[in-house]
Amino acid sequence: MRSEIRPIYWRRGVVYILDQRLLPHKLRYLRLKTARSVAKAIKDMAIRGAPAIGVAGAMGLALTAYHSRAKTRERFLSELKRSYELLKNTRPTAVNLFWALERVMSVIIIKSDASIEELKKLILEEALRIAEEDVEANKKIGENGARLINDGDRILTHCNAGALATAGYGTALGVIRSAFAQGKRVTVYACETRPRLQGAKLTVWELMRDGIPVKLITDNMAAFMMQRGLIDKVIVGADRILAKTGHVINKIGTFSHAIAAKYHNIPFLVAAPFSTIDFKSTLEEVIIEERDEREVLYIDGKRIAPRRAKALNPAFDITPPELVSYIITEKGIYRPTELKELGSEQ
Amino acid sequence: MRSEIRPIYWRRGVVYILDQRLLPHKLRYLRLKTARSVAKAIKDMAIRGAPAIGVAGAMGLALTAYHSRAKTRERFLSELKRSYELLKNTRPTAVNLFWALERVMSVIIIKSDASIEELKKLILEEALRIAEEDVEANKKIGENGARLINDGDRILTHCNAGALATAGYGTALGVIRSAFAQGKRVTVYACETRPRLQGAKLTVWELMRDGIPVKLITDNMAAFMMQRGLIDKVIVGADRILAKTGHVINKIGTFSHAIAAKYHNIPFLVAAPFSTIDFKSTLEEVIIEERDEREVLYIDGKRIAPRRAKALNPAFDITPPELVSYIITEKGIYRPTELKELGSEQ
Repeated sequence: MRSEIRPIYWRRGVVYILDQRLLPHKLRYLRLKTARSVAKAIKDMAIRGAPAIGVAGAMGLALTAYHSRAKTRERFLSELKRSYELLKNTRPTAVNLFWALERVMSVIIIKSDASIEELKKLILEEALRIAEEDVEANKKIGENGARLINDGDRILTHCNAGALATAGYGTALGVIRSAFAQGKRVTVYACETRPRLQGAKLTVWELMRDGIPVKLITDNMAAFMMQRGLIDKVIVGADRILAKTGHVINKIGTFSHAIAAKYHNIPFLVAAPFSTIDFKSTLEEVIIEERDEREVLYIDGKRIAPRRAKALNPAFDITPPELVSYIITEKGIYRPTELKELGSEQ
Repeated sequence: MRSEIRPIYWRRGVVYILDQRLLPHKLRYLRLKTARSVAKAIKDMAIRGAPAIGVAGAMGLALTAYHSRAKTRERFLSELKRSYELLKNTRPTAVNLFWALERVMSVIIIKSDASIEELKKLILEEALRIAEEDVEANKKIGENGARLINDGDRILTHCNAGALATAGYGTALGVIRSAFAQGKRVTVYACETRPRLQGAKLTVWELMRDGIPVKLITDNMAAFMMQRGLIDKVIVGADRILAKTGHVINKIGTFSHAIAAKYHNIPFLVAAPFSTIDFKSTLEEVIIEERDEREVLYIDGKRIAPRRAKALNPAFDITPPELVSYIITEKGIYRPTELKELGSEQ
């Protein structure tokens, strides 16, 4: 097995982000020194995946703190607040971003008597801790989820919920990695995931790198594969899970696979860390990001549709709890409707 | 409204085929003089769509007959038989091709005392009649189907079942055209239809040309659109309909939309001429064409997946009768399970 994929890391005041828009053809890191450039990397999807953008957001705040020349606490906090707003307004759907930003900002509130220098240190530590904890959570998710995978399973996945979508190891792909490491023979069918093709470009790349058998299909082949008896499980990640109702918000196309899985009585599994669970929001409060129509009208810079054609581009969809068999987290495996009972622990 | 789209026509011993691989960017006709070149055009999908390849097959045979220098009836028939085999073995799933080829060949059997010159004339007439009848059937399908369309309907369609998929006017798009001509305000959501993007490239182009409101979506957005209450009907064409059981074989992705439509209680309509109905075969006898994996790995010549990645590429899927509300034909509208009762008429 090759060295582990590091989608994002911190080194001496610089955030390194693997530019996922260039994969699988080029492996190149962005070197970012400001929260603004991190915000742009999130918005333009150089880094994507709910846990990964959470980590990126935290490191963005850490950059502002680290490089701040503020002499007063007031000035320092106002710089941080500005970066917080910038980072928060990049993408509206995944909840991990808000969770991570809040967590870093709360350091300031908790340590209300700390000096600027102390705060700089504490903020960086918190950002790095979020990244470390994410990898640990993923490994635990993998361990928990692998119990649901049988030897010989043929697993359908959508988008990329791998190392690239997290601080490392991955959620849905973490479960697959963990099962594979235990010696279970698995075959993965990766849905290409239009419009941005994260399945074709990222998931296939990650799995091939680890020597895990994978075949690429277009999103619209999934139901047919199920009908032919070629799929034993579906595993996906999540961008937000609503604890109150058990709805799973994830990359556009997930819902379609969930309906087809239900129709064929195939287990539909969601793997995600607790940071993806939203204990507050109701379904009505969730904003589904609508991205630029050009992501649909063009592929890799080439126009596929006629001139003046219009397109829609919702980036996520919502899978209701009755279509979800299990939610695999680092703390255990739950039915989607069981999550509301965990709310009080938060 | 602009002039009608002519995907295929005959003029003085030459078959003109609009090269659909170049649409929507270029409008260029192939000039074909041999059955072999027509077979290649079908195989390479310069022309596609079940009724259209039926017409192309018939015209391919007519080319062989027209240009034959055979002096004996035996020689003439052997040339035709060779072309028949060539054309028959281009694509295995759509039944119209076999139907049209049989129909042309049966002229020879029926007119067993005709001279070579007479046969040449009869074969060409039969091929041209198949094309004419297809346009007439489509207009009748449109008329019948338009009764199911309400003013204000938002209609989802998949792939291209338009003028380009037929000898003209279209099946699913014929229904939409007909409703639109009656003054019903419709909006079409065209699924792009991976891997070959016939929805993005052909359907959007056809509808824009006619001034019918259309928006492009990726295939995996369909279920989400239904969930949001934005779709009133789904209409697709078909490559083969099994009269015995009511199964509908159509472009990959159709089945997925049908499951989602059922889940949301949205009518799922199939529009097709009688030449698409297979009164003989059982489900087990249908061959689902598996096309080259490069259609999935590359888009417009550009590789999207990592090197050495593998892909699957089934070109069609099978929608069971319980997911199909109505089948709209030139002879009337049927429930899928009613088709078997029509078998005796054939």
